[in-house]
Amino acid sequence: MAHPVKTPQNTADALLALGAVALRDRLASGALTAEALVEACLARIAAHEPQVGAWAWLDGDHAITQARKLDAWRQAGRALGPLHGLPVGIKDIIDTKGIPTANGTPIDAGRVPSTDAWIVTRLRAAGAIILGKTVTTECAYMFAGKTRNPHNPAHTPGGSSSGSAAAVAAGMVPLAIGTQTGGSVIRPASYCGVVGLKPSFGMIPRTGILPQSPFLDTVGVFATSVADAALLAEVLAGHDPADTATEPAPMPRLLATCLAPAPVTPTFAFLRPPEYDSADPQMQDAMLEVSQALGEQCFDVPFPGFDDMGDVRRRINFAEMSKCYFGLERRGHDQMSDILRAAMVEGRGVSARDYIAALDWRALLNTALDKIFERCDAILCPAAQGPAPKGLENTGSAIFNGIWTLAGVPAVSLPLFTAENGMPMGLQLIGPRGDDARLLRNARWLTEHLTSTQKA
Amino acid sequence: MAHPVKTPQNTADALLALGAVALRDRLASGALTAEALVEACLARIAAHEPQVGAWAWLDGDHAITQARKLDAWRQAGRALGPLHGLPVGIKDIIDTKGIPTANGTPIDAGRVPSTDAWIVTRLRAAGAIILGKTVTTECAYMFAGKTRNPHNPAHTPGGSSSGSAAAVAAGMVPLAIGTQTGGSVIRPASYCGVVGLKPSFGMIPRTGILPQSPFLDTVGVFATSVADAALLAEVLAGHDPADTATEPAPMPRLLATCLAPAPVTPTFAFLRPPEYDSADPQMQDAMLEVSQALGEQCFDVPFPGFDDMGDVRRRINFAEMSKCYFGLERRGHDQMSDILRAAMVEGRGVSARDYIAALDWRALLNTALDKIFERCDAILCPAAQGPAPKGLENTGSAIFNGIWTLAGVPAVSLPLFTAENGMPMGLQLIGPRGDDARLLRNARWLTEHLTSTQKA
Repeated sequence: MAHPVKTPQNTADALLALGAVALRDRLASGALTAEALVEACLARIAAHEPQVGAWAWLDGDHAITQARKLDAWRQAGRALGPLHGLPVGIKDIIDTKGIPTANGTPIDAGRVPSTDAWIVTRLRAAGAIILGKTVTTECAYMFAGKTRNPHNPAHTPGGSSSGSAAAVAAGMVPLAIGTQTGGSVIRPASYCGVVGLKPSFGMIPRTGILPQSPFLDTVGVFATSVADAALLAEVLAGHDPADTATEPAPMPRLLATCLAPAPVTPTFAFLRPPEYDSADPQMQDAMLEVSQALGEQCFDVPFPGFDDMGDVRRRINFAEMSKCYFGLERRGHDQMSDILRAAMVEGRGVSARDYIAALDWRALLNTALDKIFERCDAILCPAAQGPAPKGLENTGSAIFNGIWTLAGVPAVSLPLFTAENGMPMGLQLIGPRGDDARLLRNARWLTEHLTSTQKA
Repeated sequence: MAHPVKTPQNTADALLALGAVALRDRLASGALTAEALVEACLARIAAHEPQVGAWAWLDGDHAITQARKLDAWRQAGRALGPLHGLPVGIKDIIDTKGIPTANGTPIDAGRVPSTDAWIVTRLRAAGAIILGKTVTTECAYMFAGKTRNPHNPAHTPGGSSSGSAAAVAAGMVPLAIGTQTGGSVIRPASYCGVVGLKPSFGMIPRTGILPQSPFLDTVGVFATSVADAALLAEVLAGHDPADTATEPAPMPRLLATCLAPAPVTPTFAFLRPPEYDSADPQMQDAMLEVSQALGEQCFDVPFPGFDDMGDVRRRINFAEMSKCYFGLERRGHDQMSDILRAAMVEGRGVSARDYIAALDWRALLNTALDKIFERCDAILCPAAQGPAPKGLENTGSAIFNGIWTLAGVPAVSLPLFTAENGMPMGLQLIGPRGDDARLLRNARWLTEHLTSTQKA
């Protein structure tokens, strides 16, 4: 099932291949009903879910009911939300009122939240359909769930947002939501061959989402194009006083900016992150090729000197995790995986002094990055070491992602490369913090530029 | 030298006894020159500094130069700042450009900052005169400086803002600035018999001030009346992007609100904090008397159940201190006092998990306090256990202050009581977080109410 989205075999496939923005326009004009779209999604799911295993919870009737309500709403001539009739998959650490949310752990099996997460309230208000809950690794850490890579079921889809990436890649749903604390959006997007966006830290409120490491946890989105990712992320962005990482500020116009022509041809900086040598030669070749294809629009830039940023991020992540999962551990220590328990133990061993000192690095890192962003519009870097590794236990390494999560800068994975075994590989684009809209515009520009170059 | 401010013996004394608001009006009208006021301050200092030891750095010529410049400015008919011509004493952990700032430690002896702290910039823009730097305990922790209590040199002035409280109490300067991480404003204010205000956490930016515990460190002010404290605090309040505790918001009109008549007679809740039994019987009697004098305007309220808040505050303070003073320790471990070294060791032993968990208590505590503030305008509580203890080594206990610092709620100490030995004792008034202006109005009301009752 290579490139499932690009090779539609029937009506449902052709419909899903349109992408979210085009589907939204058809839904708004009445050319397509939400019910028909949900039926198409359910058909794709019926065909591919046994192999892919992207869903933790799914109820077709529930989705159809929402769709019919939204169709009736439109037929009554009422104003439509920006996602009216679009089905969305939601990572199973994000609370959904009345719908099971098990956080990927048997400890929370059967848990049914009594309120929606802030972003789910936003989704409903925007007219989106909660299609179902997507598989997460255990508590959004590393122990794998049941999901397989849609491009080859013998390979991992990546984690922790495994189901969200796989569901979009398999054409089961046009949009899905995930989260990233290390590399949990960008890596599965790269492995599954879809667009993944990890926005600036603080752009999307996290209230009602299982906190693992509040200094790092970032909501992200999956889609089949940059514009589709912009459409969804724009709806989720906002200010929630309950999430102090968010601020009351005018919201970015992600989609409009993304679709606008670039005022000047963008310039890129090719950055080889620490341990770049560990990347698959195919990935290194692909990166070099892009760099060369961009010619004068691309220059090399050294990593700004902080080689232990991976350790710093890990210290923050594990220290906060040991606090955030304390209650979970007390309720079900025996039901935790060995790797999660080991991370909790490591987190418990971090001193407050080292933890507080680690927090300072976000500002220092951004000061160094700002110097780079004075000279370029975005940084180019691999989204992962290479294609999805074989096997399902290991969800792969976040080695090229963690530093950007620590910095809180926006990152997007673009499905531009294919390995010799047919598996996709992502190119990662990074922008300055808070400049998500411009990053998305440059990502769209780069995608179109490279695609037209390849065709030519 | 009991009640030095209230028994003026010469012109300088009479002038200083007027208080900051009245002095400001005279300065603005031209009835008084800044130079004459500074001369009066210097005369008081010459007379009492040998006994009190409030100043870490003082240069009369420098102060006179500033005063003459401000007088010339006024004579030229230019617009005057809200503190035009008023001398201010500044705690020696607050950076002053070109003026030594030694943080109360030999490690930083001779240190001269190249920039002003944010609040010092504000002071200069408001037309204030930097009279000098006031003595702080070692690094604003517990090891005492040279300052003695102006009411009795055998007694401690309290700490850590020892010099600021003593300088105002001795009538050497109408206004002074301190900081509080545990009880370092309210306690010395109580011991020295002046008004001390610790505003809401986040009201006054701390950039350029030695950080000890950024979650707790709060800038406060000393004055001889509530209105004078309001005048100074209002000038210092603001938003500094470099201090993330502050927010871009309209600034409170502290002075105008403080002076406005209360729309209804305020109601108070008398709260006996944990370990209230440890308070001096004289303090307990005085509190009871006030409570009874208020009659129906006062009711008892139990402490909201969190008895280990002192430990929680201490854990945060020491953990952050062990990080903040890490460089200081490396440069001069041997020059640190034993008690500071012990606190650093204790701080190093705090785990990140316990530290992060402790931070949650501010919100929980405020939720409990909000329930109390639904029924009253302010909480009454002792400012200290009793009068200033005898001896200079022990700066006294912050036992009745730390919890309010942890909560981040505004607190004011009012010099309303006198112990049998003639030493002052403060009554502490606490308001809801962010409602500093109303707290000051209620503090003024209470002062006037009790004073007129006593006279009647």
